Amino acid sequence: MSENTSGSGYVEAEFTRDSKYISDRITADGSSPWPVEPGRYRLVVARACPWANRAVIARRLLGLEDVISMGLCGPTHDERSWTFDLDPAGRDPVLGYERLQEAFLARDPGYSRGITVPTMVDVPSGAVVTNDFPQMTLDLSTQWTAHHREGAPDLYPEHLREEMDEVMERIYQEVNNGVYRCGFSGSQRAYDKAYDRLFTALDRLSDRLEHRRFLMGGQVTEADIRLFTTLARFDTVYHGHFKCNRQKLSEMPVLWAYARDLFQLPGFGDTIDFPQIKEHYYVVHADINPTQIIPQGPDTSGWLMQHNRDQLSDRPWGDGTPPPPPPAGERVPADHGPGGIGHR
Amino acid sequence: MSENTSGSGYVEAEFTRDSKYISDRITADGSSPWPVEPGRYRLVVARACPWANRAVIARRLLGLEDVISMGLCGPTHDERSWTFDLDPAGRDPVLGYERLQEAFLARDPGYSRGITVPTMVDVPSGAVVTNDFPQMTLDLSTQWTAHHREGAPDLYPEHLREEMDEVMERIYQEVNNGVYRCGFSGSQRAYDKAYDRLFTALDRLSDRLEHRRFLMGGQVTEADIRLFTTLARFDTVYHGHFKCNRQKLSEMPVLWAYARDLFQLPGFGDTIDFPQIKEHYYVVHADINPTQIIPQGPDTSGWLMQHNRDQLSDRPWGDGTPPPPPPAGERVPADHGPGGIGHR
Repeated sequence: MSENTSGSGYVEAEFTRDSKYISDRITADGSSPWPVEPGRYRLVVARACPWANRAVIARRLLGLEDVISMGLCGPTHDERSWTFDLDPAGRDPVLGYERLQEAFLARDPGYSRGITVPTMVDVPSGAVVTNDFPQMTLDLSTQWTAHHREGAPDLYPEHLREEMDEVMERIYQEVNNGVYRCGFSGSQRAYDKAYDRLFTALDRLSDRLEHRRFLMGGQVTEADIRLFTTLARFDTVYHGHFKCNRQKLSEMPVLWAYARDLFQLPGFGDTIDFPQIKEHYYVVHADINPTQIIPQGPDTSGWLMQHNRDQLSDRPWGDGTPPPPPPAGERVPADHGPGGIGHR
Repeated sequence: MSENTSGSGYVEAEFTRDSKYISDRITADGSSPWPVEPGRYRLVVARACPWANRAVIARRLLGLEDVISMGLCGPTHDERSWTFDLDPAGRDPVLGYERLQEAFLARDPGYSRGITVPTMVDVPSGAVVTNDFPQMTLDLSTQWTAHHREGAPDLYPEHLREEMDEVMERIYQEVNNGVYRCGFSGSQRAYDKAYDRLFTALDRLSDRLEHRRFLMGGQVTEADIRLFTTLARFDTVYHGHFKCNRQKLSEMPVLWAYARDLFQLPGFGDTIDFPQIKEHYYVVHADINPTQIIPQGPDTSGWLMQHNRDQLSDRPWGDGTPPPPPPAGERVPADHGPGGIGHR
């Protein structure tokens, strides 16, 4: 998602997120103008962004790398939003764009809302199909089944959906968005409320996870993906930059072990680029970090410590199998991972 | 000390501290115009300020409360510096001043340097005697001996002075001032250097303290006071606000146990007011915290955890005794101490 002002705002000093997007769906049953079709769509993301990170993980776990290609924006952006500055000559090699904005304008020349990641782009027309991030990952699970890898886990099991939808809605409101509510509070009072709300939610999640390995039981689901992307950024940016500082994640034993467990599963930790995450938040949010100086800490080597959560369940993938390593072109540099020294 | 720009500056993007002050001394031997004299001087401090905190602790440990009175400025100040806004009608009850600046102008009507705490004020004339903080505490130890309480510890033992002066100089350069060098770096490069320098120094101090209870051995000295005042603020402000975030103090086992040990000795922890510390840094430094929002965290209850450092020495006061509790008018409110909820 974008952090720029076109995608969010302050209302009565409390941060509110503009959640209206281009919300077309890519479907398998012909019910939309966008059919499931291998090679047709390009998922544009940024490693830094927690909302995009969901889609990166889901695509990895389901084995859709050969079916939906991926374009990577750099960690920072200006008021015109995300750019392909990591690519040779600063252009996405498939879409030919310098800025993600071009894909939105290809869809609607008058487009004036947020330019956000993740975005699914129709390669033939170069136009955005959807940037509706909550629906996007569910559709990877439910619409692209014919193209899932063998052994892909069921991330959105039918019999759990009702409860999962509730759990995921609470995670969105209280945690994913809760950290932003702390960081972008426009007043002390709004911040104090946001902080209490966030840590109340984290305490409840800690209780829930004390005796079950994952949010919905013994098996990884989409709900875990959604919680993970915030926890992976907690100590690195939200604790200091957003003042979510009652404790570090590493001081909350159950959540920390849970997050390490996920991190160490293939498809989760291998999508995390700590230097890009730090650079994004500390450089883009000059309103709360006017020097734009990026902290060197924290030490991230703890992410690889033993977690012992496998005692709670030994079937993280249900009837499925873990994904293979990421394709060569999509690997996070080793020194950008846990304990790495990669810095800008 | 003051954090305002008249007392500090940026040179080639690295923070440098203006350390030129009014540096008269109060002496016992008639060598200065300011003789040691009970009741004559008022020590003006702010609970928030680490440099003033040194003098507050030394005065407590030496039992000089009845001999040198203490005035307390509030935690925040504007460009005209510290005010007595905590006092009834906003005036220091002894000096009658609203602003500490008045005492500097009484000394020198053209005074244009930093208005800083700690400051020793001559009560009859209302004029500043000295704001030379490193000399001030040593003089409390060496010039006021005739008025020390019975059982006052020797905080600056003759036979240790040569080594102590070196240790204290290193603590000043690398730690006390080192955290400011991180926080006020004018460039990424200056910050990165400052961060490495700070944590190198902390690692060395950790080594030094692994097998001795205090910096100079088995007994508390002025060197411990000087290290303590920075450690007491580390997790609460320097970790987040100044980006000193390789670890929290609470994640550095030797230094954390050492700091807790000191905190739990009378005269140290009972001088610490966490809410005032936070309010000072987060409100005064609007250049690095433009929202001026004060974080609710961190949880400070850990300061009272057992430390087991008494196994290394059982004579923290040497031949002396611990100080009695602070006088009634000088107690930090209970909810401003460890685990307190006091917030503004």
